[in-house]
Amino acid sequence: MTQPLPHVVIVGGGFAGLWAARALRTAPVRITLLDRGNHHLFQPLLYQVATAGLSAPDIAAPLRQILRRQENVEVRMATVSRIDADARQVEIEDATGGQRLDFDYLMLASGVTHDYFGNEQWAAHAPGLKTLDDALDLRRKLLLAFERAEAETDPDERDAWLSFAIIGGGPTGVELAGTLSEIARHTLSGEFRNIDPARARVRLVEAGPRVLSSFPDDLSRKARAQLEKLGVEVHTGVPVEEITAEGYRRGEEFVRARTVVWAAGVAASPLAQCLGVPLDRAGRVKVQPDLSVPGHPCIFVAGDLAAIDRADGRPVPGVAPAAKQMGRHVARTILARLDGREGTHFRYRDYGNLATIGRMAAVVDLGAWRFSGMLAWWFWLLAHLFFLVGFRNRIVVLLNWSVAYWTHQRAARIILGGDDRSDTK
Amino acid sequence: MTQPLPHVVIVGGGFAGLWAARALRTAPVRITLLDRGNHHLFQPLLYQVATAGLSAPDIAAPLRQILRRQENVEVRMATVSRIDADARQVEIEDATGGQRLDFDYLMLASGVTHDYFGNEQWAAHAPGLKTLDDALDLRRKLLLAFERAEAETDPDERDAWLSFAIIGGGPTGVELAGTLSEIARHTLSGEFRNIDPARARVRLVEAGPRVLSSFPDDLSRKARAQLEKLGVEVHTGVPVEEITAEGYRRGEEFVRARTVVWAAGVAASPLAQCLGVPLDRAGRVKVQPDLSVPGHPCIFVAGDLAAIDRADGRPVPGVAPAAKQMGRHVARTILARLDGREGTHFRYRDYGNLATIGRMAAVVDLGAWRFSGMLAWWFWLLAHLFFLVGFRNRIVVLLNWSVAYWTHQRAARIILGGDDRSDTK
Repeated sequence: MTQPLPHVVIVGGGFAGLWAARALRTAPVRITLLDRGNHHLFQPLLYQVATAGLSAPDIAAPLRQILRRQENVEVRMATVSRIDADARQVEIEDATGGQRLDFDYLMLASGVTHDYFGNEQWAAHAPGLKTLDDALDLRRKLLLAFERAEAETDPDERDAWLSFAIIGGGPTGVELAGTLSEIARHTLSGEFRNIDPARARVRLVEAGPRVLSSFPDDLSRKARAQLEKLGVEVHTGVPVEEITAEGYRRGEEFVRARTVVWAAGVAASPLAQCLGVPLDRAGRVKVQPDLSVPGHPCIFVAGDLAAIDRADGRPVPGVAPAAKQMGRHVARTILARLDGREGTHFRYRDYGNLATIGRMAAVVDLGAWRFSGMLAWWFWLLAHLFFLVGFRNRIVVLLNWSVAYWTHQRAARIILGGDDRSDTK
Repeated sequence: MTQPLPHVVIVGGGFAGLWAARALRTAPVRITLLDRGNHHLFQPLLYQVATAGLSAPDIAAPLRQILRRQENVEVRMATVSRIDADARQVEIEDATGGQRLDFDYLMLASGVTHDYFGNEQWAAHAPGLKTLDDALDLRRKLLLAFERAEAETDPDERDAWLSFAIIGGGPTGVELAGTLSEIARHTLSGEFRNIDPARARVRLVEAGPRVLSSFPDDLSRKARAQLEKLGVEVHTGVPVEEITAEGYRRGEEFVRARTVVWAAGVAASPLAQCLGVPLDRAGRVKVQPDLSVPGHPCIFVAGDLAAIDRADGRPVPGVAPAAKQMGRHVARTILARLDGREGTHFRYRDYGNLATIGRMAAVVDLGAWRFSGMLAWWFWLLAHLFFLVGFRNRIVVLLNWSVAYWTHQRAARIILGGDDRSDTK
């Protein structure tokens, strides 16, 4: 009888989880990868599903398919309800009921969700964008707003349906605002008989002093200028204090907008609280330099859920490259431990920071080299195509983008979930 | 002051409605095209969305986009709640409320939905396939069944989750059964650790004596042989008498099957009843030879909702070419009336009958020329690509099919609507 292989449980099939599992492909371990859904999602392009440029399957691939040749992995579609760090057990739930899994190593990479800073009642009026289902709901909401405006006979109501607000000037907010403005001004041009979609107002509202605050000042300014050129009204410096079905209040002003999107705050997956260790303000786990959890050297946290600083004191950003690096680092640490060695400290390699804004508009910060506009947009586009998982997905996305570029059309302007339209009321 | 243009109201943006609207593009009329959804659907490929081969937007295009250059059309996303044939009014409802529209000509092309022959309680256990939302629900149900089987520890339950039944041996049932068998035997191969998906049983149940009964006898037999070669168990001659969450009863036998799909009956859109004219057993309108409604020469019915016989007494089939021909014929009749002429009788031009079964398996009946197998499959494939609306859609579908052909993979194996998995219980 040989001894059973050490069991590595990975929670979350995002960039951190998937890259960790892959990095352990030749390791003498058995791996269980747990995810609520059945797919790995290429989150950087999620806003394009929401804005009808891509289909959901274009940016996602089944985890089982990606990992089917890796025989030491078992993929399970389940939610994790509890973690018992001392007993080294996770409690999972799926359609067959609940179950406890013992683990020798645990990597928690369940990510973040949107946060309304204590104003959970805003969620009903200003949905966020984290999952494919969020993206399809948002697509539906955006497309139905124009339908509703077309059907309205009252001019004030019509204007309210043609008024869109994106709350939060980070990368997601900027992408959504720029793309939505393009849709209104170009894609829908000539399709309506009672409204001119180009009259739609798209407001991007940021509480801080500038958009894309993770970028240097000059690129923030360029991003703002590019947004304004695309027709977006950018409002910075004053936070939103109230969101209702009618619009939002910002300082003294109440702005009517039937469609408000939340792209402002993130909160960590509540699972982090099970660990009983210090969390940062957003609920992320303050990990040790090797990404393990204080007091539990066999439990690691990676991806957006991990709070860790770089050598210069700035935090490691919640972006895909950081998540992949963390996932691989945890895998290396587990391999080292299995060999009786100590793991090393995680060091984030910053390859640069990209954000797209809209057609031919983007900003790129590669440290020494910063640029914006058309060149930055091509750079963003090629980088994202390159990193997209799956050969087919790359070709389909490239094709959809090419058609969108030449025709201003968007491939996925299909309203789904359509039998009950009561939510447009 | 010129006289207002005659108002043509078209209900339904399917093949009949869209082709009628297009055929009236130079006519001195104003057209209102009403549809519940925002898109035209290429229904012949709907089963491929359900079986995860294509994305929803691949087989649909926004009606507004298709018709945006045709200035005499207004597209409205609304449901029709009532038709007052004598007053020449339709009552519509959208998110802004209800409204009455006067018409000079009306074409009703609201299609058919599935029918459970009075057993509406079966709908919960055996969903049908008519809309994109149906297709996404079915995709989810099929993919979750394998997930559920993988998670089950009880062998009987596991078998029940690996047992699939398609009720109805028409083209949709045959397509679904053949494709599902391919998914189980090839696509999912090697992806699960606790089950062998190839052990899944796919049963196709037809009450009549043969599958594809609209085809000649020899092609029916060939279709059955091809299905069996793909691994489908074909059961004919005995109707299903009961469907529950556990399976179905057929004669003396209760077959356990957690996933049952309804592809058996169609019933006409209930709007037909508003007309107060004779309907056939399925609720379709028995139209006059010019497709008008008895007693209402300015009201026409086209597409699947119209019941009309060919010269040889056989009914015109409910297929896309017939719907297009009817739509164009109604347009021509309206043009003739505007010119003070009488319309002609509708004559269905039968270009043949195709049905696909699965990989390299199909049957084609072109009257004098009948064939099956690989050649028929290529013929089906090219014909469907050719008729798909939109250049982009054709390329994406071709690409998805090519990848599926070479790799056995399917592009859209993404479970959506995933936060609540209670429906798998």
